[in-house]
Amino acid sequence: MALRVNRRVTLAARPVGFPQESDFALEEADVPAPGAGEVLVRARCVSVDPYQRGRMSTARSYARGLEIGDVITAQAVGEVMESNDSRYEPGDLAVGQLGWQDYAVARGGALRKLPPGLEPQLALHVLGATGLTAYFGMLDVAKPDPGDTVVVSGAAGAVGSVAGQIARIMGCRTVGIAGGTDKLADLLDLYRFDEAVDYKTGDVRAAVRDVCPEGVDVYFDNVGGRVSTAVHALLNVGARIAICGQVSQYNLERIEPTFHPGLLIVFRARMQGFLVSDYAARFGEAIPRLARWVTNGDIRYREHVTAGLENAPRAFIGMLNGENRGKALVKVM
Amino acid sequence: MALRVNRRVTLAARPVGFPQESDFALEEADVPAPGAGEVLVRARCVSVDPYQRGRMSTARSYARGLEIGDVITAQAVGEVMESNDSRYEPGDLAVGQLGWQDYAVARGGALRKLPPGLEPQLALHVLGATGLTAYFGMLDVAKPDPGDTVVVSGAAGAVGSVAGQIARIMGCRTVGIAGGTDKLADLLDLYRFDEAVDYKTGDVRAAVRDVCPEGVDVYFDNVGGRVSTAVHALLNVGARIAICGQVSQYNLERIEPTFHPGLLIVFRARMQGFLVSDYAARFGEAIPRLARWVTNGDIRYREHVTAGLENAPRAFIGMLNGENRGKALVKVM
Repeated sequence: MALRVNRRVTLAARPVGFPQESDFALEEADVPAPGAGEVLVRARCVSVDPYQRGRMSTARSYARGLEIGDVITAQAVGEVMESNDSRYEPGDLAVGQLGWQDYAVARGGALRKLPPGLEPQLALHVLGATGLTAYFGMLDVAKPDPGDTVVVSGAAGAVGSVAGQIARIMGCRTVGIAGGTDKLADLLDLYRFDEAVDYKTGDVRAAVRDVCPEGVDVYFDNVGGRVSTAVHALLNVGARIAICGQVSQYNLERIEPTFHPGLLIVFRARMQGFLVSDYAARFGEAIPRLARWVTNGDIRYREHVTAGLENAPRAFIGMLNGENRGKALVKVM
Repeated sequence: MALRVNRRVTLAARPVGFPQESDFALEEADVPAPGAGEVLVRARCVSVDPYQRGRMSTARSYARGLEIGDVITAQAVGEVMESNDSRYEPGDLAVGQLGWQDYAVARGGALRKLPPGLEPQLALHVLGATGLTAYFGMLDVAKPDPGDTVVVSGAAGAVGSVAGQIARIMGCRTVGIAGGTDKLADLLDLYRFDEAVDYKTGDVRAAVRDVCPEGVDVYFDNVGGRVSTAVHALLNVGARIAICGQVSQYNLERIEPTFHPGLLIVFRARMQGFLVSDYAARFGEAIPRLARWVTNGDIRYREHVTAGLENAPRAFIGMLNGENRGKALVKVM
C-alpha cells in the first residue's frame, strides 16, 4: 500500500489582484478516515477553473469563501478507497467537490459515480460542471432559436467551447471570441464556430460587427468588460444575454460597473445570470445527452493537462492568464 | 369658428445636459388639412413624459430622434374636427402621438377612440401609455408572485405609481422610492405602498434595507443610477428586474455604466428591458382591466396640470427636476 500521506494545496494568503504562487501552500496531513455514510476517495485528476478565484476573495458571492489554510475548492475524479456508503465500493470511480488534495472524504450523496466506458476525467469538463454549465446556460437561459446568431465570449474555454457547439447543434450561426492564434484555430477547426474573433488584435467592436452583419440574437458571456461592451453594441431587438462568468473582472480589487441597463430598453433585451448548481435536479437529463454528443463527435474538446498536484497553483495562474489551450486539468496520479 | 392658427412647440436646439427653455420654440403655422384616410384633431390636453428627453438627443435609441424644427413628440387627447376615415366623425375624442401643438393630422389607424364615461385625459396616463407601461412591465416582464417584496423606483411618477398599485393588487408587499415629503406622503396615503423611501435624505441603501428585511424579489426600475445600485445590493436569489426607464441618466452627456452584470450570477437574477409599444396588440386586453381598477378605486392617481401649450417646455423641465406631483399634463384648451 502506498505511503498514506495526504498532500493538500491550501490558501496561504488572499490574492491581491492577480494570484501568485506564494498565495498557495503545499502541506502534508494524515489521510482522513471516512465516518458513517462517508467515502474516502483518492484523487486521480483535479480541476482548475475560473470560479475558484472568487472563493479566494472576501467579496460577497454565491458561495462561501475560503479561509486561510483551507484546501482549495475543486472538483476531482478519483477512486474509492474505503466506503461507509452502500452505494460505493472500493475501486469505483467517482467525481465530487474534493479539493486540491490526494485524499478526501465526502458523504456518498455528494459524489456522483462515473459510468464505465468513458474516460473518467471527462466528468471534470464536457460531462461535468463545465459541460453542464454550457448546457443549461445555453438551452435554459439563452434559449437560441435555429438561425439565430449566437456569440460566445471565452469561446475556447471549457464552458464556451461546449456552449458554442450546443448552439451549433441547435442550428444557430455561431461566433466565438477568444485571444491568440492557437485558440482562434481551435474555434474554427476543432469547435467549428462559423466565425472567430481575436479580442487581442485590433478593434473588437469592428471585428464582431464584420462577422455579425445581421446583429446578435444571443450572447453567452463568460468574460464581461470591454469584449462584452463591443458585443452589446450589436444586439438585436429581443436579444438574450446569458451571464455565465465575468472572468475579466475576477482579479480587479474593485469591480467596475461595465453595463448601462438602459441598453436593455433599446433592444428589449434580457440579461440573466445562472449557476449550474441550481440545475442539479436535472443533471440526469443532461449528462446522457452530452455523452451522446461527445460519442458521436458533435461535441469536441481539448485538454490541457499539468502533471503533479504540487503544480496546481501554477496551472491555475496560467489559466487566468489564458495560457491553457483546452480544459485545464491537473493529473494527480 | 376659432381662428385657425396652429401653435406648435418645436425643438430649437438640442439640449446639452439638462434642457432649458431656450431649447424650445413656440411657432405658428397653418392648420394642416387631412388627406385621404387622415383625421384632423384639435388637442385638449398634451402629455409631458421623461421619454421625450431621449428624442431630443442624437444618441442611438429605440425610436428616431427629432430634428431641429420638429414638433416635440407627445401623446395628446383631442377632439376630431374633420375626418377622412369612416371610423371617426367630428366631435369624437381620440388619443394619439400628436405632438405639442394645437392641431394635428394623423391616419385614423394611428389614433385610438376614447370610450365615453371616463375623463378623456386618463387616456394620457392610467388608461394610456404610462398605465400600459406599468401593466405590461409588471405583469409580463417582472411577473411578481403573491407575497413577493416589490420595489419600485420613481414610485410617485405616472408609471411607478401604477406599477406599485398593480403589484399591490397582485398581493405583493410594495416598497416605493421617491424624493421629497409630498411624494413620500402620496406613496403611503394615495398609492398605498407598504413602505416608502426618500432617496433625497440619508443613506438610501440603509433605508431600503430597513424596509426590505427579507430582500427584494422584484425591482421595477424607472431611474437607474445610485438608487438602483442600492436596491441591487438587496436582491434575492431569483430576483427579476424590469428596466422601464433610467431617468437619472437622461441628462448626462455621456451615460455612465452603472451595473456589474456579475451580480446577476450571484443572485441568479434576470434583468429585462421592455417598450410598451411592443405590446400594442394586447392593449385591448389591458385597458378594460385598468379601467375597472380605476373605477373601483384599486388604482388611484394624481394629475399635475399646467395651463397653456406655451408652458409645455417649462412643465417638461419641471418634471425632469421632479417638481411635479402626479402625472404631468398640459391643458391646451
